[in-house]
Amino acid sequence: MKDAPAPHFRRVALIGIGLVNGSLALVMRREKLADEIVACARTETTLAKARELGLADRTTTSPLEAVEGADLVVIGTPPGSAGPVASAMAPGLAEQAIVTDVGSIKAPIIRDVVPHLPARSRFVAGHPVAGTEHSGPEAAFDTLFENRHCILTPIEDTDPEAVAVVAGMWRAAGMRVETMTPEHHDRVLAITSHLPHLIAYCIVGTVADLEEHLQSEVLRYAAGGFTDFTRIAGSDPVMWRDVFLHNREAVLEMLGRFTEDLAALQRAIRWGEGDKLQSLFTRTRAVRRGVIAEGQAYDRQALARARPNDAG
Amino acid sequence: MKDAPAPHFRRVALIGIGLVNGSLALVMRREKLADEIVACARTETTLAKARELGLADRTTTSPLEAVEGADLVVIGTPPGSAGPVASAMAPGLAEQAIVTDVGSIKAPIIRDVVPHLPARSRFVAGHPVAGTEHSGPEAAFDTLFENRHCILTPIEDTDPEAVAVVAGMWRAAGMRVETMTPEHHDRVLAITSHLPHLIAYCIVGTVADLEEHLQSEVLRYAAGGFTDFTRIAGSDPVMWRDVFLHNREAVLEMLGRFTEDLAALQRAIRWGEGDKLQSLFTRTRAVRRGVIAEGQAYDRQALARARPNDAG
Repeated sequence: MKDAPAPHFRRVALIGIGLVNGSLALVMRREKLADEIVACARTETTLAKARELGLADRTTTSPLEAVEGADLVVIGTPPGSAGPVASAMAPGLAEQAIVTDVGSIKAPIIRDVVPHLPARSRFVAGHPVAGTEHSGPEAAFDTLFENRHCILTPIEDTDPEAVAVVAGMWRAAGMRVETMTPEHHDRVLAITSHLPHLIAYCIVGTVADLEEHLQSEVLRYAAGGFTDFTRIAGSDPVMWRDVFLHNREAVLEMLGRFTEDLAALQRAIRWGEGDKLQSLFTRTRAVRRGVIAEGQAYDRQALARARPNDAG
Repeated sequence: MKDAPAPHFRRVALIGIGLVNGSLALVMRREKLADEIVACARTETTLAKARELGLADRTTTSPLEAVEGADLVVIGTPPGSAGPVASAMAPGLAEQAIVTDVGSIKAPIIRDVVPHLPARSRFVAGHPVAGTEHSGPEAAFDTLFENRHCILTPIEDTDPEAVAVVAGMWRAAGMRVETMTPEHHDRVLAITSHLPHLIAYCIVGTVADLEEHLQSEVLRYAAGGFTDFTRIAGSDPVMWRDVFLHNREAVLEMLGRFTEDLAALQRAIRWGEGDKLQSLFTRTRAVRRGVIAEGQAYDRQALARARPNDAG
């Protein structure tokens, strides 16, 4: 993809103003990408918080009102709400407005959103792969996207110029932008993101069901590995519900592979097969090195020297 | 347990000089807990590294030689080696020497070590719950133990004075020291530490088995949740092999609970039961808050503002 210069918008409508769209608002302020930012959320409480944090010039609970006169619309709701939101805002959309989104799944969102829009060629589905376990406008910060990947998933009739504009916006936020098909995106993310979240939710749920006296001790000694899982399992419940419901096929396939592998591991422990265990643990160490080499993980040893740490 | 003053040792023998014993050596230097530190490891390469890092005054590959004249011996080998090491060093041990260890499992280590010692009352089994995914002497740093829990698991005939000395040493390293029975320790750690490690090893192994083109993309987009798992699954393979082999019963029990819960979750996804998913994810968020309240996790939001992050 050719690098476009940072785009400039007259009016941007952010539909949903949580961690991702809130952080994007801060980037737009800093990089002067927009003359005016309009934020839309379901509740007045969220909008009041957004105004207080300076994330928007104007706010409204109506998607229809929000997109009025906007040249860019960013859907930042939980994935399951993207379709209804598109339907609600469609009558107010300018024909040439570019619409994009930030959802963690792509094919189902395209399927739900596109039929409502006046010009399907102006919808650029996207996924900035960045986040924290915090949600809501107060979780926003303007370096969220730096050095992270952004995956755009244009379809056959998506306007290349619209893709270039959206890519330019994410580059201005510090992201490395790439494109792939929506289906491929959903399959890759099922294993890098959705399955890890599912497993983290599951183990933390198992602990939540423990006998009470044991549970309080688990919280106490969580530093031994469990802490990392609780962080992931502290992520936004509604968003993740929608991810699993909408990326069902890919998640179930990867989950099937995982449970087979887990059964094999369980058997190795039961039968005392130390060589098998050690061999697997040595291979996984190599994957860790691969991740570090890809620059996605920081070598936290330096960090660990400066503060107590979570592993054990 | 009454707080003892920081102890002072004439000669400390560190059997194994990796992350934990190496970090303990640095603490002993800083806090002036020992006149002399002797380090023992299986290979001359490790010992050369330990000398280079100033972790020891003297080094030897012989446990028997290492413990000569020591008033404190700290076994810091993988759990499966604790018994053989105890057997090898026993003839050189002074009757009044205190022996302790740092293993992640306790009942099996006590069972393997105690029979070899000249005075079983002087063995204080212990587990400083602190670590990183790095191993070897070069991974050592002197703040590893700060504000972490250390669990001592004395048995009926353990000398209370020896327990107080070992507790004093870990307090000097910055730890919060507590005692419980070895069996209870092994059960609590099975869920806080052993099961999370097993699951992390498993999912990273699943990825290692993926078709090659998919795997390279997984490494690339790992920031979406997978990164945390690779960190845990980068831990020392031999140590963890021993943990699973020796804490088999407790690990298999917790694993059984987990796989039941995972099957239920899988079913909820397959049948589109969004309410069940959202309800679980909301409960797990509460567990995260519990962990933060226990002071075991840091609110990383502040940290995330300062640098790109790993979640998504």
